[in-house]
Amino acid sequence: MSGIFSYGKITDEIIDELKGKIGTNNVCADEEKLESYSRDEVPQSAYDREYRAALLVFPESTEHVSEVMKTASRERIPVTPRGAGTGLSGGALPAFGGIVMSFEKMNRILELDEANLTITTEPGVVTAEISRMAARHGLLYAGDPCSGDASFIGGNIAENAGGNKVIKYGATGAQLLALEVVLADGSVCWFGGKRRKDVTGLDFVHLMAGSEGVLAIITKAILRLMPAPRHSVDLLAAFPDAESAVAFVPQIIKEGGLIPASVEFIDRKALRLVASYLNTEIPAGDAGAALIIQLEENDAELLEREFEEIGKLSQSHGAYEVYVADTRGAKERIWQARKNVPEAVSAIYKRYTKEDLVVPTADVPALLELLNDTARSEGLECVAYGHVGDGNMHCTIISPECGDWHERLRAAQLRIYEKLVGMGGTLSGEHGIGYKRREYMKYFLDEAQLELIRRVKLAFDPQNILNPGKLVEWGE
Amino acid sequence: MSGIFSYGKITDEIIDELKGKIGTNNVCADEEKLESYSRDEVPQSAYDREYRAALLVFPESTEHVSEVMKTASRERIPVTPRGAGTGLSGGALPAFGGIVMSFEKMNRILELDEANLTITTEPGVVTAEISRMAARHGLLYAGDPCSGDASFIGGNIAENAGGNKVIKYGATGAQLLALEVVLADGSVCWFGGKRRKDVTGLDFVHLMAGSEGVLAIITKAILRLMPAPRHSVDLLAAFPDAESAVAFVPQIIKEGGLIPASVEFIDRKALRLVASYLNTEIPAGDAGAALIIQLEENDAELLEREFEEIGKLSQSHGAYEVYVADTRGAKERIWQARKNVPEAVSAIYKRYTKEDLVVPTADVPALLELLNDTARSEGLECVAYGHVGDGNMHCTIISPECGDWHERLRAAQLRIYEKLVGMGGTLSGEHGIGYKRREYMKYFLDEAQLELIRRVKLAFDPQNILNPGKLVEWGE
Repeated sequence: MSGIFSYGKITDEIIDELKGKIGTNNVCADEEKLESYSRDEVPQSAYDREYRAALLVFPESTEHVSEVMKTASRERIPVTPRGAGTGLSGGALPAFGGIVMSFEKMNRILELDEANLTITTEPGVVTAEISRMAARHGLLYAGDPCSGDASFIGGNIAENAGGNKVIKYGATGAQLLALEVVLADGSVCWFGGKRRKDVTGLDFVHLMAGSEGVLAIITKAILRLMPAPRHSVDLLAAFPDAESAVAFVPQIIKEGGLIPASVEFIDRKALRLVASYLNTEIPAGDAGAALIIQLEENDAELLEREFEEIGKLSQSHGAYEVYVADTRGAKERIWQARKNVPEAVSAIYKRYTKEDLVVPTADVPALLELLNDTARSEGLECVAYGHVGDGNMHCTIISPECGDWHERLRAAQLRIYEKLVGMGGTLSGEHGIGYKRREYMKYFLDEAQLELIRRVKLAFDPQNILNPGKLVEWGE
Repeated sequence: MSGIFSYGKITDEIIDELKGKIGTNNVCADEEKLESYSRDEVPQSAYDREYRAALLVFPESTEHVSEVMKTASRERIPVTPRGAGTGLSGGALPAFGGIVMSFEKMNRILELDEANLTITTEPGVVTAEISRMAARHGLLYAGDPCSGDASFIGGNIAENAGGNKVIKYGATGAQLLALEVVLADGSVCWFGGKRRKDVTGLDFVHLMAGSEGVLAIITKAILRLMPAPRHSVDLLAAFPDAESAVAFVPQIIKEGGLIPASVEFIDRKALRLVASYLNTEIPAGDAGAALIIQLEENDAELLEREFEEIGKLSQSHGAYEVYVADTRGAKERIWQARKNVPEAVSAIYKRYTKEDLVVPTADVPALLELLNDTARSEGLECVAYGHVGDGNMHCTIISPECGDWHERLRAAQLRIYEKLVGMGGTLSGEHGIGYKRREYMKYFLDEAQLELIRRVKLAFDPQNILNPGKLVEWGE
């Protein structure tokens, strides 16, 4: 693979050429901006050194993107596409410098098609805007990443963002019908269409979901909408301990016979952290663990029967208190604990790392045990919360003290990863591999599959200029 | 691309080697068997000549598949994987001879995991067996191809088979959690796992869905299950004409506010053909067109309110009669017309071709008009039926008389395809491209995308030995 990371330099002539092509205002080499556009939400401390783009571009159209890529491919300059910068795996990090392409100016919703139940959008639209526009038409956009108020839909697609409703609706990729993309050489392609099924060619639409910008650049997306459920209710069930909370989750489907829209988990430590961070009492704040269960129905009476049934069921499985919320204010209060865990952790601790592990749902209890045991044996602590309904837990490993944090963390991670493989789990459910996790890929995928990833990457991008250095190691 | 279709010969030594590896009983060169394993359900008349495998293999395990591929890749012999042979696009046709690999002996369901709601299966299991085993556990396997009583799950995955329930549950690909595959060189890989979300690597699980055996060979699949809806009801609504029937479809979602499990369409001619073929009276047999609408709910009362509402709604949109079926016998009677159209056509006509066109759902009326106008202007006729709820119509173009059928058909197809592109439609919704449709791909995908398909194919299979000649043209 030698030479695969040899790139051209960005000269003044190239900068002038790009300014001529996409406008002087859309090309920027300001030092401060270069710095702020060269990271996402992974703390700098996760990396051995700083990475910095040499140039920023702000395309306003597909044609702009195509023109930049024509220059970049001619000169073999790396291009890293960037959404809102809310990523959690260093996907938008310009690992080999070059150009960072920000989509903040391609921020229009282009169409809501009520007849076909689709919405067509540029990549720089904040996801919550899509949800709100759908809601105004009585429709649901079912993608629901926790970062939805800030992240861009283009980033959601590139990471196949999950969120709170995957158990019922699938992740972002499951909402995708079509993508307009710009290939590495600047050519423009449509994958898919406003079609509910399509086997005309290979399924590049879903291959793009979660491809982290290494295959092609997303310039438009067509997403499916559906009728919004007429009624929803959120339950917060307080359990004495994590074990009983987690053991209840499969019973919602098995005994309850229904698929909830969300099942979220918050452990004891996370509840205490949030209460302390918000400096207020929170529902179930003194519990050993809590579950948030969201139910949706078109029929109010049926929904009422269902939440009563699930409430009783939770109590027969150990919940000692159940809060029910059907108004906006009450729902917000119920979600408060869950939504504030990441902020509480980063406000209170200096040394922590957020994992994104996923296991078969029945193995969540074993995962929690593994995490706590391992953290304890390395003198670390663990905050566990997340999407328990689909087996994806955001366990945050924290260090209560200074000292050999990196060594202890690494020892803990390797021990967890090794056992995780044995229980059918994997490295990332929704945050992606990016730059942060690529060195761990070899513990989860065999060399044949890693090599396939490299070959498919090069089939799309023979010069390796699109977001190089992500997803897998190349022996660089 | 010269040399890409140069293959080695199958010698007696190779046959002996394969017999030694996978057993004498699992290797066959009998002429009659070679002939019957060298076609699917596309009539021979669709092709310019006959295609014939040189050898059949019947692996009993992943190891057998791997061993065959090691020999085939060393000798550069084409290998065409084959399910039940129920395909409708020549996907299992050995276009370059070589080995046909039948999966009829890898026919075990390996596990039903109630805790994780998954079923793990070998590729040669008949799809209906999977549905039945799920049903025995109160669970639903949501893939529902019309050929489910005969087709194999491996073929369903390779074609991304659709069927009657795509509008609610998605096609086969949407049910897929993981695949064990054998790569062209014989190495064995797992893509995905028993996980509801996974972004660890590229999404090869869904790339495999609909890849028609050109990327890798499926040896195991893990499919998701869900709680079976407790109640379902089928409505058959008789309309005076196709226009009013088709215009009603979007109102089910829009005014009715619910997503049905199925919405199927049968036109006047199809109703008459089936009645004549079955030589019996069928419900709505005298209608101008009929819709079958399936509703599912966990709550019997809610379901009753819903089907009454949808029934009334259909009448306010032109339906003059509505039949409701909630028993098995009554349901079978309602589906009789829809399920017997293909057999009725092939029993009554000699010259016909079944299309698998798909359009944005709102454009189904325009598609029907286009089909009927075009057929008429070429002196042909058209039978329209299919999955109207997801815009996928199986229009069968038939020739009532002898004569220049091929020329007239081709003229009609090209005219239809050209206009189809303009309305956002495409060539195949669920039957696949295979050998039958690859020459038409250029009307629907641009050269950049066709070239990407070729490159990804070669990234997986550098020697081009896996089911060569399918999906796209190579200038061979």
